Amino acid sequence: MKNLVPPLTLASAFALVAFSALANDLGDVRASAERMEARIVALSEFGSNSDGGVDRVAYTDADIAGRAYIVSLMEGAGLEVRIDAGGNIIGRRAGSDPALPIIMFGSHTDSVPGGGNYDGDVGVLSSIEAVELFNEAGITTRHTLEVIDFSNEEGGLVGSMALTGKIRPETLAVTSQSGLTIADGIDRIGGDHSRIAEAVYAPGDLAAFIEVHIEQGAILDEEGVNIGVVTGIVGIRWWDVTITGFANHAGTTPMNRRRDAMVAAAKLTLAINHAALDTPGRQVATVGRIRAEPGAPNVIPGRVVMSLEIRDLDLAKMDTIFAMVEAAAEAIATETGTTIQFNPIDTDSVPELTDARVQAVIAGAAAELGLSYKLMPSGAGHDAQDIATIAPTGMIFVPSKGGVSHSPKEFTAPRDMANGADVLARAILAIDGGALGDE
Amino acid sequence: MKNLVPPLTLASAFALVAFSALANDLGDVRASAERMEARIVALSEFGSNSDGGVDRVAYTDADIAGRAYIVSLMEGAGLEVRIDAGGNIIGRRAGSDPALPIIMFGSHTDSVPGGGNYDGDVGVLSSIEAVELFNEAGITTRHTLEVIDFSNEEGGLVGSMALTGKIRPETLAVTSQSGLTIADGIDRIGGDHSRIAEAVYAPGDLAAFIEVHIEQGAILDEEGVNIGVVTGIVGIRWWDVTITGFANHAGTTPMNRRRDAMVAAAKLTLAINHAALDTPGRQVATVGRIRAEPGAPNVIPGRVVMSLEIRDLDLAKMDTIFAMVEAAAEAIATETGTTIQFNPIDTDSVPELTDARVQAVIAGAAAELGLSYKLMPSGAGHDAQDIATIAPTGMIFVPSKGGVSHSPKEFTAPRDMANGADVLARAILAIDGGALGDE
Repeated sequence: MKNLVPPLTLASAFALVAFSALANDLGDVRASAERMEARIVALSEFGSNSDGGVDRVAYTDADIAGRAYIVSLMEGAGLEVRIDAGGNIIGRRAGSDPALPIIMFGSHTDSVPGGGNYDGDVGVLSSIEAVELFNEAGITTRHTLEVIDFSNEEGGLVGSMALTGKIRPETLAVTSQSGLTIADGIDRIGGDHSRIAEAVYAPGDLAAFIEVHIEQGAILDEEGVNIGVVTGIVGIRWWDVTITGFANHAGTTPMNRRRDAMVAAAKLTLAINHAALDTPGRQVATVGRIRAEPGAPNVIPGRVVMSLEIRDLDLAKMDTIFAMVEAAAEAIATETGTTIQFNPIDTDSVPELTDARVQAVIAGAAAELGLSYKLMPSGAGHDAQDIATIAPTGMIFVPSKGGVSHSPKEFTAPRDMANGADVLARAILAIDGGALGDE
Repeated sequence: MKNLVPPLTLASAFALVAFSALANDLGDVRASAERMEARIVALSEFGSNSDGGVDRVAYTDADIAGRAYIVSLMEGAGLEVRIDAGGNIIGRRAGSDPALPIIMFGSHTDSVPGGGNYDGDVGVLSSIEAVELFNEAGITTRHTLEVIDFSNEEGGLVGSMALTGKIRPETLAVTSQSGLTIADGIDRIGGDHSRIAEAVYAPGDLAAFIEVHIEQGAILDEEGVNIGVVTGIVGIRWWDVTITGFANHAGTTPMNRRRDAMVAAAKLTLAINHAALDTPGRQVATVGRIRAEPGAPNVIPGRVVMSLEIRDLDLAKMDTIFAMVEAAAEAIATETGTTIQFNPIDTDSVPELTDARVQAVIAGAAAELGLSYKLMPSGAGHDAQDIATIAPTGMIFVPSKGGVSHSPKEFTAPRDMANGADVLARAILAIDGGALGDE
């Protein structure tokens, strides 16, 4: 085991020892890597494609079939299963004290088109595995437990938005990648968009929420660390950047008389890259999409439209990076005789920090199991970022081979999945035992 | 009049004085700016669009209607009109000595989609105007004259390729922008693709060829010069450039672990720009088209495909610029962890120089009329480049307002069109009088 835990977190972890006296104990009971792997393989049959991945887009037949399999696993583990108005599958395990708030844990099983077999799935199967361990050890928790399979995560965190009361009427009208509107999709998988408000959990309803997920980055894999303790989920801002020059004949317009929008776009792309690369921190900035108009090899582009995405855990840092990009754009526009406009796209999400106490509980659970761990932000968005607005929230990352994500090449080893489930189960019991210190 | 003529050309122009004694004389007869403007306006009705330009793509109904108008103008000027097997409209005016080779002049009347009202048209109408002047002055030339309206210039110089025997069977099978194959298009406008070889003129058939054209650049307009004496038509080389990096999640992949094909493409775009801009000379290099894959704002592009076009009058110079780009690409590939491949596209054309004697004749005609002129290359391709392979060829440029080209915003003033026709008519008479010195 590598000792990667910083002093402050270590202090918190030691504090857990006191709380764990109150908790149920799993003893030698451990997650079954074989069972989890068998379930991943079985789940990957629903929507499997010829590339070895899955097309299990929310609201499609494949999604419905995959969800039915999850319901069967939940029922097999003794959970009382319902589908809420937002289309979330929720499996309940009653606690001994009905007055206590619920401890919820889970993830999602829908995929992007051409997705892999681990994103989301590992979190749902880890959550069911934790329940299997409690069953095996004969544990009854004080808090009621709920395992959740969120609906349509990949299409905009729809299930967790519903759970936190953030779905707006215009969101329901959006056409999802299935071809159905989100409203029709929710209804198709057993929800009821007309009663969406009934899906809402209020602050105080949940004692805590924990999501296990594959890292979708290569840090744990490359550094040989078992568990990522997620410190927060980065905020995301998107812009369409429009660069306007002057379209002209590429043969007859001398180099020094051009107002070439493509040259300006190239300079701006490098300025964006440098702003994120050269500033200390973990922020990222990306140009992923670009279109030059009119788009012929023999015409100087008069207009280029490209995307800009900035992510960081710190909103102020995101603003700083964008200010650097804007300043660079102003200089580039002057230099190239173009104009550059940034149009914000309304898909922003603000950074959400996880609960420091839940981080400590997860770190302590890993340490108790002899697993190495590392504190890290999540560069990707997750349902946990919504739940973080109503409950103490944590995330557990397990290694992804090579950091490959949203691809049939995703891979997480059975041992790593089992580690995630073991850490989750122990973190739940610590919280159930009062580790968060709020009872 | 600005005196822009270099010493060597001045010497040639003086030499013309001796030859002009042999030539017919137009005296005070001058092209009619009003007539030319009226004809431009009338021609612009065929295929006119709501932007104020024309969609007169070769082989379409608009093209056929515009060509019928040109035939009527030719016939009105007393020309004997035929359509050759390549679909070219040729109007003949018999000379007094049938043994002498033909002097040919003309351009084209087809347009790009969304084109302007001057490109090509000014050359055809100037050529008809020159004949009107000969009629008005009662001049019979020694050489037979032929006015030509080349077919489908914008779709690959089809008419001039046919005239010079360069049409290959696979070219005939290509689908043109009209939706018809070039073979079917030629047949539709009155040609006969099965007899295309009959359109060929052999070296020696033409005493000279001259094309009047709008500059399609801003040099004459901005410098206030009346006439461009074209020294040659630049060669063109095209490549598809494929940059391969590694597509990955834009949120979870740290800046320093990326192999971002878009960043490499931006660096290469600037290297291309600098190679052409910073090297002395008139060469141009352009990135006009770009596509990033997969092309989502939240995915680091794994592949970018972009176009590269290089043009210059000197083939060796084009090779030098490309070598600079290749060297830069190698360094960029290493630096960014990408691979960069250049795939030549088979639409290359080699540079074609115009005939130095025809240049002198044109310069002399401008000087005789008190018009300023400037020697310059043509950055755009023209039918003249094909004819240059079988006959002494020259081109006369007239100013384009702001250099706008292939756009409804194209504009050439009536006075400038008339100047072009006047220079053309006098250049024809000088050649008819033996100014090329080969009789």
